Amino acid sequence: MSTTGLREYLDGPHKAARDLVRDGLAANAELLDAGLGLSRAEYRDKVLEVMQQVTAEGHTSRGFPKEFGGQGDLGGFIAGFETLAFGDLSLMVKAGVQFGLFAGAILHLGTSRHHEEYLTDALEGRLLGCFAMTETGHGSNVQALGTTATYDPATEEFVVHTPTAAARKDYIGNAARHGRMATVFAQLVVGGERHGVHCLLVPIRTTDGQPMPGVTLTDCGPKLGLNGVDNGRIVFDQVRVPRTALLDRYAQVDAEGTYSSEIENPDRRFFTMLGTLVQGRVSVGGAAINASKVALTIAIRYADRRRQFGAPGSADEALLLDYRMHQRRLLPLLARTYALHFAQAELVDEFVRIFGGEDVVDKFEHDQRALEAQAAGTKALGTWHATETIQMCREACGGAGYLAENRLSTLKADTDVFTTFEGDNTVLLQLVAKGLLTNYRESFGKLDPLGMARFIAGQAVEIAVEKTALRTLIERLRDAVPNRNDAADPDAGLRDDAYHSGLLRFREEHMLAAVARRLKRGIDDGVEPFEVFNRCQDHVIAAGRAHVERVVLEAFATAVKAAPEGIASDRLKDLYDLHALATIEAERAWYLEHGRLSTARSKAIISLVNELCATVRPYAGELVDAFGVPGAAVDVPMVVPSQHE
Amino acid sequence: MSTTGLREYLDGPHKAARDLVRDGLAANAELLDAGLGLSRAEYRDKVLEVMQQVTAEGHTSRGFPKEFGGQGDLGGFIAGFETLAFGDLSLMVKAGVQFGLFAGAILHLGTSRHHEEYLTDALEGRLLGCFAMTETGHGSNVQALGTTATYDPATEEFVVHTPTAAARKDYIGNAARHGRMATVFAQLVVGGERHGVHCLLVPIRTTDGQPMPGVTLTDCGPKLGLNGVDNGRIVFDQVRVPRTALLDRYAQVDAEGTYSSEIENPDRRFFTMLGTLVQGRVSVGGAAINASKVALTIAIRYADRRRQFGAPGSADEALLLDYRMHQRRLLPLLARTYALHFAQAELVDEFVRIFGGEDVVDKFEHDQRALEAQAAGTKALGTWHATETIQMCREACGGAGYLAENRLSTLKADTDVFTTFEGDNTVLLQLVAKGLLTNYRESFGKLDPLGMARFIAGQAVEIAVEKTALRTLIERLRDAVPNRNDAADPDAGLRDDAYHSGLLRFREEHMLAAVARRLKRGIDDGVEPFEVFNRCQDHVIAAGRAHVERVVLEAFATAVKAAPEGIASDRLKDLYDLHALATIEAERAWYLEHGRLSTARSKAIISLVNELCATVRPYAGELVDAFGVPGAAVDVPMVVPSQHE
Repeated sequence: MSTTGLREYLDGPHKAARDLVRDGLAANAELLDAGLGLSRAEYRDKVLEVMQQVTAEGHTSRGFPKEFGGQGDLGGFIAGFETLAFGDLSLMVKAGVQFGLFAGAILHLGTSRHHEEYLTDALEGRLLGCFAMTETGHGSNVQALGTTATYDPATEEFVVHTPTAAARKDYIGNAARHGRMATVFAQLVVGGERHGVHCLLVPIRTTDGQPMPGVTLTDCGPKLGLNGVDNGRIVFDQVRVPRTALLDRYAQVDAEGTYSSEIENPDRRFFTMLGTLVQGRVSVGGAAINASKVALTIAIRYADRRRQFGAPGSADEALLLDYRMHQRRLLPLLARTYALHFAQAELVDEFVRIFGGEDVVDKFEHDQRALEAQAAGTKALGTWHATETIQMCREACGGAGYLAENRLSTLKADTDVFTTFEGDNTVLLQLVAKGLLTNYRESFGKLDPLGMARFIAGQAVEIAVEKTALRTLIERLRDAVPNRNDAADPDAGLRDDAYHSGLLRFREEHMLAAVARRLKRGIDDGVEPFEVFNRCQDHVIAAGRAHVERVVLEAFATAVKAAPEGIASDRLKDLYDLHALATIEAERAWYLEHGRLSTARSKAIISLVNELCATVRPYAGELVDAFGVPGAAVDVPMVVPSQHE
Repeated sequence: MSTTGLREYLDGPHKAARDLVRDGLAANAELLDAGLGLSRAEYRDKVLEVMQQVTAEGHTSRGFPKEFGGQGDLGGFIAGFETLAFGDLSLMVKAGVQFGLFAGAILHLGTSRHHEEYLTDALEGRLLGCFAMTETGHGSNVQALGTTATYDPATEEFVVHTPTAAARKDYIGNAARHGRMATVFAQLVVGGERHGVHCLLVPIRTTDGQPMPGVTLTDCGPKLGLNGVDNGRIVFDQVRVPRTALLDRYAQVDAEGTYSSEIENPDRRFFTMLGTLVQGRVSVGGAAINASKVALTIAIRYADRRRQFGAPGSADEALLLDYRMHQRRLLPLLARTYALHFAQAELVDEFVRIFGGEDVVDKFEHDQRALEAQAAGTKALGTWHATETIQMCREACGGAGYLAENRLSTLKADTDVFTTFEGDNTVLLQLVAKGLLTNYRESFGKLDPLGMARFIAGQAVEIAVEKTALRTLIERLRDAVPNRNDAADPDAGLRDDAYHSGLLRFREEHMLAAVARRLKRGIDDGVEPFEVFNRCQDHVIAAGRAHVERVVLEAFATAVKAAPEGIASDRLKDLYDLHALATIEAERAWYLEHGRLSTARSKAIISLVNELCATVRPYAGELVDAFGVPGAAVDVPMVVPSQHE
């Protein structure tokens, strides 16, 4: 297999953007150790310094319009951001806060006057900003934020205020030290009427770093990781900002205090505004997948040189990677990393298709909701995968893996929060399932396509599905899945991708139909809607996950088929099969329970996963080489022997 | 339920020792924040200072003989050590190195001259020491250590030497800063002949803290956690120590250079020496279980006050702990923590029974091997449980869980290494399985009861089992398991503990028999023994785990039955049922594959786990109260509202 060819295939259309960031990381390799040797304050300043240097190289504005110094290249922007995850993750997160969230909110929620006044400064790193959404009391449920922005027509100002301790802005990146301005999400109150959550630009620090009057800034203190990012808390005490501070792309308040919006439904308006911020989730998912690549590169190279115990009579002990258990622990995770890589690439393509044009929100609302669900699902699976993979890699390297110098522990600590930031993963999978359940609306009756929160709250009381219709669907599914009677030849077709896809599709659709039926039944029985939802919550989340698993699997299958000549696609197919069968193996209880696997076939799958581990093992090193992680990030002491060895 | 009564029941016979440590932790509560505010060097010194204070209070020598200032109370010693895990874990680990490992090695491997010269100083914290076993190149495979100790009869000295970079002592607690002496494990060479690994006392620092001549000491640098412990590396360059430095309980070298040992077989001698160190594994397992209690106390109290989303029309949002998914994530882990607690208590009782008397090694060798397996298994499951539980608790607390002030992140970082130190968990489960496989020796033929490493290496070539005998065994098992035809009434007997135990016993015995058969077949077929073992390695480890799961389950069942009046034992039974059924649920694919569950019953188990979560939920708060974690360890900002709220 040609590693170069495979690496180019993985890098895809945004290879140049990725390589630029790789070069930047290599040039700033000393940052990788900065978190260990510096005090927290020094580390934060060092991260800022490198971020501003990277900014000067022009990467960070790549995704923004040309008139503000950008290149209008959304796909390259995201690819570059993902690649930052090969380096120091505090740098990546700080850049994400500044350019993705802060500048992104100005771009997407503001209008030309905001763009002209702030965007160039933000993109060139002169105006450092915060994205002040989350509060101490509300993270997942953004619609219930407590901060208020009340319009005062006498002075044509908004008064931004923190009414309770729970409404304090919390965990806000750039708030503790560097941020001068914040995009603040608050309940907009105009003429005594509440219009829901909107976003305003609020200065929080003077140019010499002092808090603005009425603004209290505190430090969140040390964290498990990402200590190069200055997360802090913001409390507003009747802080006045001009009327123009409202980011008014979707809603306007005129001087007299008249509120207007082209989107009449408040829920729809809220989700439209939030929808423009999907880029954050797309980026975090990609970053998590790339962090997994770093960990696997380290752990697999280590396992391919570290020896322990071994065959009697042989001169050497055995390599860790020759042990079945070690293969079992690492290689399915390697295969899954490839699968998620290709799923992420599909997601980025779709993101560029939808957001790459001009003002597309109204034209493609359906596509946009689908994109949000895909982003939510990929983010959830990608970040959980990172947590699991990095943990496994750490354990697979024993005590050496626990030392900071070998980087796995830093990766683990830094990525850990990914599972709950930019949307808690369990909440995100509910969002995915909710989107899919609306596909049952023909049989279900009307189900408001917006508003996860409302759905959770059980307001979807109009559900009017015919039970028989759903039963028919389930029976149709049962007949459609291949190899139903597999006991006679349990190995037949196990490496057929249509078989894998058929099983995963069956599971997804069966779970969705079953959840829909349970929800319908509960509501028919007069159970309180919240209780109806809550009784099925684990089922809802499992259904969301089943969907994303299927999407990820098919993305990998598609990528195997599309691989150009020169890539040893039979080897990529081995890796795909390992991923597919390990995924089915993990859910084989469900397939057994639903008559989709015979017990003989279930056991055959376990054996084949073992065999495929052994098949992939000889080129596992090449498969991690193809990730193209810069040497500085992976040439750690335990992998590269010191001169003493 | 009476929390006081339950807490006393959990504390068991060593309540006084536990309470003493609880009081000490409360008195030194400031140490819990020390790791955050201090430099690494200051934190290490602070930990030493508190350790010496705790030492002065007499707890740390509790397990040692009275003539050296101890109390001869092994059980209280372990219980106290476990309780240290409610506080700063660097303190616990440093105390473990000093008193458990360093002083323990002197006690168990040395003779009266070592005891008299060093033990009192070690136990009173004046002589700080290291346990120098692990090397850069060898952690799990201790028999292959590279350090040498060569006897020089001319001077009556041993020459301790590090021949290769891989033989450098690594990750050694107390080595980087505080240790003055080390118990060094080295290949003993006498008269040109190698006698295997033995232990010697080697001074490594002068009283004013300088390295001894020929000793090079370096710092392992920052770690993911436990940064209050000064782990370091030791290299010996022809360091000479007197002949009396050999800890010579099991083997002696006389002045002329004659080696003698009452244990002739070198493997048996090695495992006997190592066996005396089982206390370390017993202690780490217990500490990990207690760290889980801290995390669950924090996360469950948080979930019982934090609200997010909720029922429409209701004034409040819903409590996190009322969500099914949240219950599903936390409550089975709570139940499992109780199960492991009782299994650990049984292990400690057994440890005290075997080690509490005088010089019991020869009398109870069989019991001792069984104890080692039980300790290995409980350590593996307990430490993996801690990793999983603390991770889940962190995620269940979202961004707040990531902040150091809320302690979950510190717990996570500090406990992470437990899965691989004091024996890598996968290697330990192999050890468990190996011990069990020797129970098949009647049918297997002779299998050396010692020597995991040798077994792994496939030297057990004399296996001569009759396949038919094993088949018969499996069939007998199949008929013995209850409720084989359960499809007619899938709910019947699901809460019967004999049913749970029967299923887990069936699984354990079936897996062991099947592994034995596979090993036998491979060897009969002439496959290279290492390859035979390696092909089954995942199966071997799963069998070891199945055994430990059964032991843990039965310990919980026994504890429910033995609960005194005043404990609401029906509630304890609910919790036990939750643990039992969640354990079966996790392995239901296997039971389906082996005809032990019908699909209807498998689904019924899933439903019942959900129901039991709801049953346990109202008293989950009382169940964590009963752990008796001191307030300082769990009254974190996110749980105890600040005055601003």
